[in-house]
Amino acid sequence: MKTITFKNRPKIIGWYSVAGEKESEGPLSATFSQIVDDEYFGCKTHEEAERKMLKFAIIGAVKDAGVEKEAVDIVFAGDLLNQIVSSSFAMREIGIPFVGVYGACSTMALSLINAAVFVDSGAISSAVAGVGSHFATAERQYRFPLEFGSQRPPFSQRTVTGAGAAVISSTGKSNIHISSATVGRVVDMGIKDANNMGGAMAPAAVDTLLNHFQNTKTAPEDYDAIFTGDLGIIGEQIVRDMMKSKDYDMGIRYSDCGRLVFGEGQNSDMGASGCGCSAITLNGYILSKLKKGEYKRILFAATGALLSPTTTFQGESIPCIAHALVLEN
Amino acid sequence: MKTITFKNRPKIIGWYSVAGEKESEGPLSATFSQIVDDEYFGCKTHEEAERKMLKFAIIGAVKDAGVEKEAVDIVFAGDLLNQIVSSSFAMREIGIPFVGVYGACSTMALSLINAAVFVDSGAISSAVAGVGSHFATAERQYRFPLEFGSQRPPFSQRTVTGAGAAVISSTGKSNIHISSATVGRVVDMGIKDANNMGGAMAPAAVDTLLNHFQNTKTAPEDYDAIFTGDLGIIGEQIVRDMMKSKDYDMGIRYSDCGRLVFGEGQNSDMGASGCGCSAITLNGYILSKLKKGEYKRILFAATGALLSPTTTFQGESIPCIAHALVLEN
Repeated sequence: MKTITFKNRPKIIGWYSVAGEKESEGPLSATFSQIVDDEYFGCKTHEEAERKMLKFAIIGAVKDAGVEKEAVDIVFAGDLLNQIVSSSFAMREIGIPFVGVYGACSTMALSLINAAVFVDSGAISSAVAGVGSHFATAERQYRFPLEFGSQRPPFSQRTVTGAGAAVISSTGKSNIHISSATVGRVVDMGIKDANNMGGAMAPAAVDTLLNHFQNTKTAPEDYDAIFTGDLGIIGEQIVRDMMKSKDYDMGIRYSDCGRLVFGEGQNSDMGASGCGCSAITLNGYILSKLKKGEYKRILFAATGALLSPTTTFQGESIPCIAHALVLEN
Repeated sequence: MKTITFKNRPKIIGWYSVAGEKESEGPLSATFSQIVDDEYFGCKTHEEAERKMLKFAIIGAVKDAGVEKEAVDIVFAGDLLNQIVSSSFAMREIGIPFVGVYGACSTMALSLINAAVFVDSGAISSAVAGVGSHFATAERQYRFPLEFGSQRPPFSQRTVTGAGAAVISSTGKSNIHISSATVGRVVDMGIKDANNMGGAMAPAAVDTLLNHFQNTKTAPEDYDAIFTGDLGIIGEQIVRDMMKSKDYDMGIRYSDCGRLVFGEGQNSDMGASGCGCSAITLNGYILSKLKKGEYKRILFAATGALLSPTTTFQGESIPCIAHALVLEN
């Protein structure tokens, strides 16, 4: 596993996050660009609401960057819905060339890495990386429709309703750039319980973190903060324990986006999950702190569970992945 | 829409195609690396067979390139199944870092373009682009399970059972390189009939072809051959007509992979479709002719219909896309 070093330091020149009602009641509320109280976002279906949020995030990020839509060469986007239709349909209205990527809940990191390589290479001069998810669409696609009223096991996580996007560019004013990235490999430790995503994904996060640290000759203390994507409370603890056994103390600088999004008393079991989880945390909380200089260098490692309901029905365990990138001010 | 020019001429140093029984009875039969007569490929389910074919294609391409698996930095792969599980599960066994891409039936071009940009930039030195599909898994996911015995409308196409992969590298012996690429945008002309894929996708192919020709100041006659992905007989004719109306005569150098894969008397309606369609044609017929020097310069524009059964049920039309790249000897 290789770590890519970006020679031309592609910049993040704008970003935008759209968060749902429950997300806006959590501790990160003040960092979101836009809050949408209506779970339908004025649409007829939750699927339409999800794609509208993603569209708003992409357009919002472009506006925040202060560039014209026509100046963006490619949008890299993905989501959790079958055939990533939220992204395709959002892109139908946006009209910029589109590269669909899929890494389940790791897609925010994956789309950013792709965008960064394309911009760094000089192939294009600017790109958007955008990702979103919706609680109601994910529940009915992966588990049960909400109307069914199924009881969720206590170690389950709640898919974030929200979307986030960032503009990556070789030019423009910004003090934030992407300095390196590590593309992960599939890790499957045999967990078959599709409700225990944190437990399933943690070893993939550890695999990527260990490789990233070794390749870059860095350690946790070289970063002001380290984030995983949506491991939740259980998964975060597993990462701490596994990293400790390899002599890496993750310490207080490490936190999982899935643990940050919802607060105590929000009845969200092990925390948040979904593509939108790391997307709204990055394109709100994390990038704000980088911009202000409160962080100088962070490691963002989003995690994804690459299962489908069909593979679960067929008795398969859960292949997982984590992609990491370093953002610096 | 921009056309990317590859400065360092990333090479295609190896390839492999795996084709199903019906595909092996068609006119391209002799060009496939491997033929699998058993639709289950020795597995319990068609889904397992699909991922096994993709795995064989990726491993086969690496062997054909004469490199060690460990020398490949990233595999870019995608397929038609929900959450691209054929790719994720194949990559679980292969162990190389993995970027999941999704462009429906355009995924062979999309994965190649991504791989080419990563290699051309120097971020990595070699990559695999791999794609597959299976008739039985696609039928039951997008339409009906085969056991249902539904009658197919006469303008429908048949998903290819097969997989293809190519190794892209900055070093190694090969006379084939990727010289430029155009990432497409989503085009939706309002067609809602999910059986008429060729008609839905043709305008997206035309949009990308026109932009590619204008950006590169080339015309159809500058290429020894031009291929679209899986438009079939109807879609190919629509492309010819639409291009003609823009004063581009596609002529005999143009053909659609969906028309090439099955022969007359194979009862395949408007021809072949699916990710595997352009994948087995490229990683067999097209690359063989390039290697032998029968082609000096070709344009490969794979097409994708970015719908899902959910969007069709919700009354949506079909967003389509086409990505193009130029291969030269």
